[in-house]
Amino acid sequence: MTSVHHSGPTFAENEVIERIEAFRRRRPRLRDEIVTLAHGAGGKASAALVDAVFVEAFRNEQLEALGDGAVLTLPSGDRLAFSTDSFVVQPLRFPGGSIGHLAVHGTVNDLAMAGARPSWISAAFVLEEGFPVAELRSIVADMAQAAETAGVQIVTGDTKVVAKGAADGLFITTAGVGVIPGERQLSAAAVRPGDRVVMSGSMGDHGMAVMLARGDLAIEADIASDTAAVSDLVETLLAAAPSTRWLRDPTRGGVGTVCNELAQTTGLGVVLDEQRLPIRPTVNGACELLGIDPLYVANEGKFLAVVAPEETEAALLAMRTHPLGGEAAVIGEITEEPAATVALRTGFGGTRIVDMLVGDPLPRIC
Amino acid sequence: MTSVHHSGPTFAENEVIERIEAFRRRRPRLRDEIVTLAHGAGGKASAALVDAVFVEAFRNEQLEALGDGAVLTLPSGDRLAFSTDSFVVQPLRFPGGSIGHLAVHGTVNDLAMAGARPSWISAAFVLEEGFPVAELRSIVADMAQAAETAGVQIVTGDTKVVAKGAADGLFITTAGVGVIPGERQLSAAAVRPGDRVVMSGSMGDHGMAVMLARGDLAIEADIASDTAAVSDLVETLLAAAPSTRWLRDPTRGGVGTVCNELAQTTGLGVVLDEQRLPIRPTVNGACELLGIDPLYVANEGKFLAVVAPEETEAALLAMRTHPLGGEAAVIGEITEEPAATVALRTGFGGTRIVDMLVGDPLPRIC
Repeated sequence: MTSVHHSGPTFAENEVIERIEAFRRRRPRLRDEIVTLAHGAGGKASAALVDAVFVEAFRNEQLEALGDGAVLTLPSGDRLAFSTDSFVVQPLRFPGGSIGHLAVHGTVNDLAMAGARPSWISAAFVLEEGFPVAELRSIVADMAQAAETAGVQIVTGDTKVVAKGAADGLFITTAGVGVIPGERQLSAAAVRPGDRVVMSGSMGDHGMAVMLARGDLAIEADIASDTAAVSDLVETLLAAAPSTRWLRDPTRGGVGTVCNELAQTTGLGVVLDEQRLPIRPTVNGACELLGIDPLYVANEGKFLAVVAPEETEAALLAMRTHPLGGEAAVIGEITEEPAATVALRTGFGGTRIVDMLVGDPLPRIC
Repeated sequence: MTSVHHSGPTFAENEVIERIEAFRRRRPRLRDEIVTLAHGAGGKASAALVDAVFVEAFRNEQLEALGDGAVLTLPSGDRLAFSTDSFVVQPLRFPGGSIGHLAVHGTVNDLAMAGARPSWISAAFVLEEGFPVAELRSIVADMAQAAETAGVQIVTGDTKVVAKGAADGLFITTAGVGVIPGERQLSAAAVRPGDRVVMSGSMGDHGMAVMLARGDLAIEADIASDTAAVSDLVETLLAAAPSTRWLRDPTRGGVGTVCNELAQTTGLGVVLDEQRLPIRPTVNGACELLGIDPLYVANEGKFLAVVAPEETEAALLAMRTHPLGGEAAVIGEITEEPAATVALRTGFGGTRIVDMLVGDPLPRIC
């Protein structure tokens, strides 16, 4: 008998298993036999696939299902955040950015959400035979520029090429590593009733910009993606509001899905105030025309923060001094009830339940 | 003027630029306007693409071109290895393993080549709509098993789905992080004339197993992939031969390409002894039938080590006690001349130059 092979779960493993089971009771079940676009949309089907396939197989204390990235503790006690994302956005270029910007910002932001200072990025490319080298150069230049602005280095990578027809132009997968400062603790477990939900800026810009850039909707509107690295804004927030509990960027699945994940993980309620949700009129108008609820439309340069009530004013004041935080606002509150549920207080004094995203109204937006 | 913005390169940056320029003078040039399969084969065209597009854009001290992974130094002084690889192998399953095994072993081995003890892996999936969930589960189970055997945890991940026809079933990108023990220094800069080139086992098994598994060559031979995590064997080697200079696993591009990269990086000669190259008769026979030089056929569970002459005997004795090192052998030597070149001493007393892999005789083998 060695430390690697043993007959039953250890105490720590039992704890992990219990945590998984409680989490899972509140999560959707996988009933599909084939993968559908909805499994990649970041909503209900994605959660079911992750739980049933990945969490099931990879059971460990760093469960993906519970965050955007993993927290690694080194033998020295140093803590790192480690995160990965694949990017399959179509078109490759859209108002406000390109797949190159997204590939850097997406991973930088996941690290920032874990409380880390993003430092190093890897980049792996799957290219379709026939992809123009000039276009690749231009996307790689966007990555270099995004990395420089975010203060990270792209330090390692890989390139694979598949035959024409076996991929759609270019897919990029980045992973990232950042150091979490010693004193910093961010966790859904720290969220308490009465805490405020702060959003760093307007909702849905990225998803709508990509949808309209496809040109097949015959809607013209001046909407640019908000793709940006929010790591510096996170530092500004945490300096002003050091008791901040939890951070998450509303990418695929949008604010609605992210709040559901928070509600399910904590077992608490998240009550959003419809009138306080920041949204640009053009984005709102495009959503209305398409019949899409902006609560499910992705950002790529915004985040939600759960902030202690007594630090909320300081948090907003500080964020609004930052170029990316001018529209920061309280959009909701953490409550005891309804347990494990997201509710929206509407402008008419009513309340409706906000579910996780179902289906995939906006495929391949990141 | 801040520490981030300055008008010219610093001294350290000048050093990096000089190193890149010297390296590049010995490397192939990119002349293509579109991406071809050869750019993904790990040989001459891959090197040209990496130099012209990625190294050019991402210039920093952790250049991808110079290793399988990057070495990161934390504020505490701890050193980490960080590496990534995409896997697009076809078919997904072949004698000896699957894309799931490869995705874990590939990244574990890259970390081990940097001298690290592999610890944490990320896994990002690009799935084609319609992919069977049962097949995904089975590949993910292979990943979990490979991770457990290698002693690493899969701690974070991502899933994207693209429409039918926009990808070929499943692509997996893994990244990995491992800690490099304090005293350990592996670098091509430490390689000296007189050092021995040790190979941990037989050549070309993986590439030939995948080629034959496709079934379109009408050759039947009992060849299994050697896919395996070599990290434990590396620890065995380094304990017995602590002055070991440099490690590299001959994946895409094979032993021939890896030795060329070593020769180009060091400016030294690598003289291989044809009669000492370990190769299974079935693999050799299949290579002959296909007209493929086994020097360019990939392994996924082997490595090359440049070992100090006085530690070579101890290295071989130790490696041969390990389940994965039974066939470890000295296959060549480092020489002053021919500078920056790989030569092969043939069985007939002659010598021929071994170039980097040109073209892609074996597409999508990893």
